[in-house]
Amino acid sequence: MHFSTETGQEREFALGDIPGVLWTPGDHNGPLILLGHGGGQHKKAPGVVARAQRYLTAGFAIAAIDAPGYGDRPPSPEQKKLTADFRERLGAGANPWHAVADYNVAMVRWTVPEWRATIDALATLGYGPFGYFGLSMGSAIGIPLAAAEPRISAATFGLVGLETLAEAAAAITIPVEFVLQWDDQLVPREQSLKLFDTIGSSVDKEIPVQKTLHANPGGHGEVPAFELDSSVRFFSRHLKPTAAG
Amino acid sequence: MHFSTETGQEREFALGDIPGVLWTPGDHNGPLILLGHGGGQHKKAPGVVARAQRYLTAGFAIAAIDAPGYGDRPPSPEQKKLTADFRERLGAGANPWHAVADYNVAMVRWTVPEWRATIDALATLGYGPFGYFGLSMGSAIGIPLAAAEPRISAATFGLVGLETLAEAAAAITIPVEFVLQWDDQLVPREQSLKLFDTIGSSVDKEIPVQKTLHANPGGHGEVPAFELDSSVRFFSRHLKPTAAG
Repeated sequence: MHFSTETGQEREFALGDIPGVLWTPGDHNGPLILLGHGGGQHKKAPGVVARAQRYLTAGFAIAAIDAPGYGDRPPSPEQKKLTADFRERLGAGANPWHAVADYNVAMVRWTVPEWRATIDALATLGYGPFGYFGLSMGSAIGIPLAAAEPRISAATFGLVGLETLAEAAAAITIPVEFVLQWDDQLVPREQSLKLFDTIGSSVDKEIPVQKTLHANPGGHGEVPAFELDSSVRFFSRHLKPTAAG
Repeated sequence: MHFSTETGQEREFALGDIPGVLWTPGDHNGPLILLGHGGGQHKKAPGVVARAQRYLTAGFAIAAIDAPGYGDRPPSPEQKKLTADFRERLGAGANPWHAVADYNVAMVRWTVPEWRATIDALATLGYGPFGYFGLSMGSAIGIPLAAAEPRISAATFGLVGLETLAEAAAAITIPVEFVLQWDDQLVPREQSLKLFDTIGSSVDKEIPVQKTLHANPGGHGEVPAFELDSSVRFFSRHLKPTAAG
């Protein structure tokens, strides 16, 4: 992990081909939240930076990377084809959720190994335990990542459905806060409810709760601002066991 | 409203036949949360008192009354018959949710006018705005109450389904936090999801959010403790507009 520019609490880094950014509250190298951006976003998109600032204020370190073909990373020929196919399907009137789900399968294949390499590097620097936040494409990638990666110990997911994710969702046993938009124009409500139902995190009397669903009216991009505060409390409950819930 | 015993911040009262209790933080007579108890509970059941203490700490006044036939109120002959009929149906293997829903219809008819008289008396003393909290039977009564009573301006409901409540739910336009238990053995999940869907509170761009759903694994009585903190924040957002969300 090679660090370049440093501005206050923010340091950009490169890990091989992967450009990323690390926000750190002071000298702290404890609990860290991995931020997975959504489709059309990148590691320093305004929503990602605003969320990182909020987590930073709550005492967490945060790391974000550009997914392949996003942000500072030019798309590979394979990815250009993926995007062209996706747009063609939408243009031909395909069900947008099916098209998105298939697009995301390719993104999972490319991005999950990169996140795992990033966690390796951050763990070497002493960070952890790790949380993961990502909605929409950030969840489509994050759910298989969390299923494969035992170092992630709590996650906020949402704006995504069961299709293509059933096996990974069932394998997840960490605490999950799941955000659903009741009038999501992209992800059918039933798909999201089934995904929440499938997440393997069970009720364990020894641990307060393993999964919790927050649903709000509005479309795909209209998650209310108070869910950010809720996410802070969720990560505080699970990544800082001694902090107030 | 006639006050009798006073112990610190707690005063018992009688309003005609209705026994109640009022908790007040200091000299404050501002925002007040009405606590509607569930079936088998009463105005000073342990869960009601613990919740009142938490709201009190957050600066709210709280009022709770015994529903007819509960707590200090002997059941009327009509209510004895209602309870006997309910038990007979359950004993005969009836769908418990149908039996509960029908039982609650009678409770609504008796209890809603009593809550409205209580609000009259509390408003005369200067309390308000009013929130309402009640789950299960407390929601079966609270939803028609909030639909009829313009002085209630935010409510936490849950553990209840659409059946017999559709008309009242559609008439509700205030902010609502709705609590659902994913494995509720009494209320079918689909019934609760339909009720949340039917609640009339719409997305208004001028107001952050009008209804929000929190679902957690577990049975009817297993709402996790962190939902109490969430309810405090919900009422703070909506009853104390200047307080932090």
